[in-house]
Amino acid sequence: MTAPASSNPEATRLEDLRQVLEQGGMRKAGRMLNALQTAEIAHLLESLPPKERELVWNLVDAEHDGEVLTYLHDDVREHLIQLMDTGELVAAVGSLDTDDLADIVQDLPVAITHEVVKSLDQQRRDRLEKALSYAEDSAGGLMNSDTVTVRPEMTLDVVMRYLRRLRDGLPDITDNLIVVNRKGHYLGVLYLTDLLTHDPEDSVAEAMTLDVQAIPATWSAREVATRFEQHDLVTAPVVDDEGLLLGRITVDDVVDVIREEADHQFLGQAGLSETEDMFAPVLLSARRRALWLGVNLLTAFLAAWVIGQFEATIQQVVALAVLMPVVASMGGIAGTQTLTLTIRGLALGQLTLKSTRWLLAKEMAVAAINSVIWALVVALIAQLWFKDADIALVIAAAITINLLAAAFAGALLPLALQRLGIDPALAGGVILTTVTDVVGFLAFLGLATLFLL
Amino acid sequence: MTAPASSNPEATRLEDLRQVLEQGGMRKAGRMLNALQTAEIAHLLESLPPKERELVWNLVDAEHDGEVLTYLHDDVREHLIQLMDTGELVAAVGSLDTDDLADIVQDLPVAITHEVVKSLDQQRRDRLEKALSYAEDSAGGLMNSDTVTVRPEMTLDVVMRYLRRLRDGLPDITDNLIVVNRKGHYLGVLYLTDLLTHDPEDSVAEAMTLDVQAIPATWSAREVATRFEQHDLVTAPVVDDEGLLLGRITVDDVVDVIREEADHQFLGQAGLSETEDMFAPVLLSARRRALWLGVNLLTAFLAAWVIGQFEATIQQVVALAVLMPVVASMGGIAGTQTLTLTIRGLALGQLTLKSTRWLLAKEMAVAAINSVIWALVVALIAQLWFKDADIALVIAAAITINLLAAAFAGALLPLALQRLGIDPALAGGVILTTVTDVVGFLAFLGLATLFLL
Repeated sequence: MTAPASSNPEATRLEDLRQVLEQGGMRKAGRMLNALQTAEIAHLLESLPPKERELVWNLVDAEHDGEVLTYLHDDVREHLIQLMDTGELVAAVGSLDTDDLADIVQDLPVAITHEVVKSLDQQRRDRLEKALSYAEDSAGGLMNSDTVTVRPEMTLDVVMRYLRRLRDGLPDITDNLIVVNRKGHYLGVLYLTDLLTHDPEDSVAEAMTLDVQAIPATWSAREVATRFEQHDLVTAPVVDDEGLLLGRITVDDVVDVIREEADHQFLGQAGLSETEDMFAPVLLSARRRALWLGVNLLTAFLAAWVIGQFEATIQQVVALAVLMPVVASMGGIAGTQTLTLTIRGLALGQLTLKSTRWLLAKEMAVAAINSVIWALVVALIAQLWFKDADIALVIAAAITINLLAAAFAGALLPLALQRLGIDPALAGGVILTTVTDVVGFLAFLGLATLFLL
Repeated sequence: MTAPASSNPEATRLEDLRQVLEQGGMRKAGRMLNALQTAEIAHLLESLPPKERELVWNLVDAEHDGEVLTYLHDDVREHLIQLMDTGELVAAVGSLDTDDLADIVQDLPVAITHEVVKSLDQQRRDRLEKALSYAEDSAGGLMNSDTVTVRPEMTLDVVMRYLRRLRDGLPDITDNLIVVNRKGHYLGVLYLTDLLTHDPEDSVAEAMTLDVQAIPATWSAREVATRFEQHDLVTAPVVDDEGLLLGRITVDDVVDVIREEADHQFLGQAGLSETEDMFAPVLLSARRRALWLGVNLLTAFLAAWVIGQFEATIQQVVALAVLMPVVASMGGIAGTQTLTLTIRGLALGQLTLKSTRWLLAKEMAVAAINSVIWALVVALIAQLWFKDADIALVIAAAITINLLAAAFAGALLPLALQRLGIDPALAGGVILTTVTDVVGFLAFLGLATLFLL
């Protein structure tokens, strides 16, 4: 589904900006840049190598700085924050609304945070504290406090007059007004579409919708996302455990959650973080990657150690050394397929203990069929290559064993890891290939030792 | 970010339904089921193994059938469609609005499609044809035709009276009315929030927003998604190349696009399709997986062939056979990290030719640093293990070479594949590991042959 870079609006915009910069058209570049949405500016900044990024960052109007920062991934944000002096930074983030401020305040140097908090009036300071009291990836952390509430007994006519008196209009992405009782408990929502199509004499109670359930502030971000996806929501009210209205979540933030979760799953497999900056400094990247390589090195040497146990066998039948990677990699591929399906099923909440049993049985059956097919193919090739029926038989057996082990591990590993509180998307792949390598080499060389010598 | 299954609302709902079914409470199960949103029913169906799925499908009220089908992935949809007789199917999909119908009509048996189309009145038939004339993953394919338009010269007062007269109210997810001229050309949007907060005497022209650009029907789904993400859109008008209003895209469909794209990227790496049904019949899955295993087998034997060229060397120094998987897998891991970053960068339109050069340089530098570190570590271990300085030197050199080759391939492969119109998310991984295996074995065994014999 990836569109060719040429027809991709982002890529094109990026190239245009680059050209102007190269021709030294700073003014022009600045104009191009500041005509964009802050989210687009953020996307551009993330698409640029450090030097150009710093250059472009200086072209962004100070008034946009704050908002742009909120759209950046952590790594890039830190990079740019380091370029700003206290005054600029305080001015930039001080102008943000409390909810955006809450999202980035953790990443600010303590001194700055101090300055900013001081610059806030009491009401905003309280709001900020409230916003910070929830985990970033919880409904409470996602919610905004810009709710517009009405009472059930009001008539729509009164509501409309009330809206016209709102000094700065309705907040962006408002598809409904939230109906609360005198105590501020959530009752339902009044869709603007209903407000507009019902008789003005009707009461809010008559026009409101009751079947939009409020989201508890304690829900995880992904539970919120699923709710939005399955109910096609644009905004949803957030309540505490007493049903008291706390704020609302808007779909644009939910889209970000889905995007981040996808990045996490995709990058996690390679041991990368979703905050990874493609153009991060070499040393930073090197340090992060080193860790992952180290983990892999351990598993690689474990496999090597297994092989080492069979040196004598290999000495006598070198063909084994030639063929053993085939056994290991077939297992790795088959296992990864099962693993990937299972991880996704878990993430979507489509896998439960019961269905896992079913999935395991199915994956084992699939593995059985494929192991037969490919064991025969590999055996045939081995036979033609080395003219040795015993080797052919041994590798066929080893591949069968390894594919079955791979399916077994692929289906159960994610659940096991989740039970242990380990993120399957991150650790699953490494562990699986360790299993398939070890089992593969063990089965192949072990059987060879038994039957070929 | 995956929440433990226990606290996951989907998983819980699934378990509840299962229990009721096991206790044979068909009636109760039916009630539980039909009280849910159609999207939730679809999600449940996808979470069930075939037998239970068919059982539950029969419990779904006929009136919901059509909508549920639109929410299902292709595989599951086909599965359930096979269970319905012509009458049911025609009734189910016939009741769908034209846009939903367009989404699934391709998957219906020709005979059914015929029946359905016959059952449509001329207007709906025309609409359907129009909807089908756009690629499924284009803006035209995503759009709905349920637009509510107003003219710039109307006063807001008139608009509001007009809305109250709409027989079946405003369509779901309506945050604005689309302003068009007499000829039907797109002019701008009138946000309901502005309609409600402006003076009723104002004209639409005075209250409308001009900076929402219409989306060309030819844009790709992912370009649409990016636009929605970066402009925080809820709905967007779609126009033809003359600027004539064709329809509108709503954020709920965009969320689906993002989800599908993420699935495609994640599952693609394992050679799985995003339409993959976790509970697909064994034979179907087996056939699909077989293909991928076959591809991998070719690459595995290519690696084996390389090793085969050095049988004599291995015969004399068996330690090489023990250590060679280490060289290959270190390269594979390092290369996958670079590859993953590059694929993501391309998908987000953050990579252009220029920045690729920069990325390549950076990744090579990262690889250089890590190769030094890990070459030393591996050399040390090899030395301690085999007490042979030459082997230690050879493996250190081989790892250095392979990590550099891995970074090089990881950075350039995706771009090359995209140029060739091959999906990097699908083919990238296999090709990369082939490269790192071949280079790894070649470098290690080659150098060994030169310096150890």
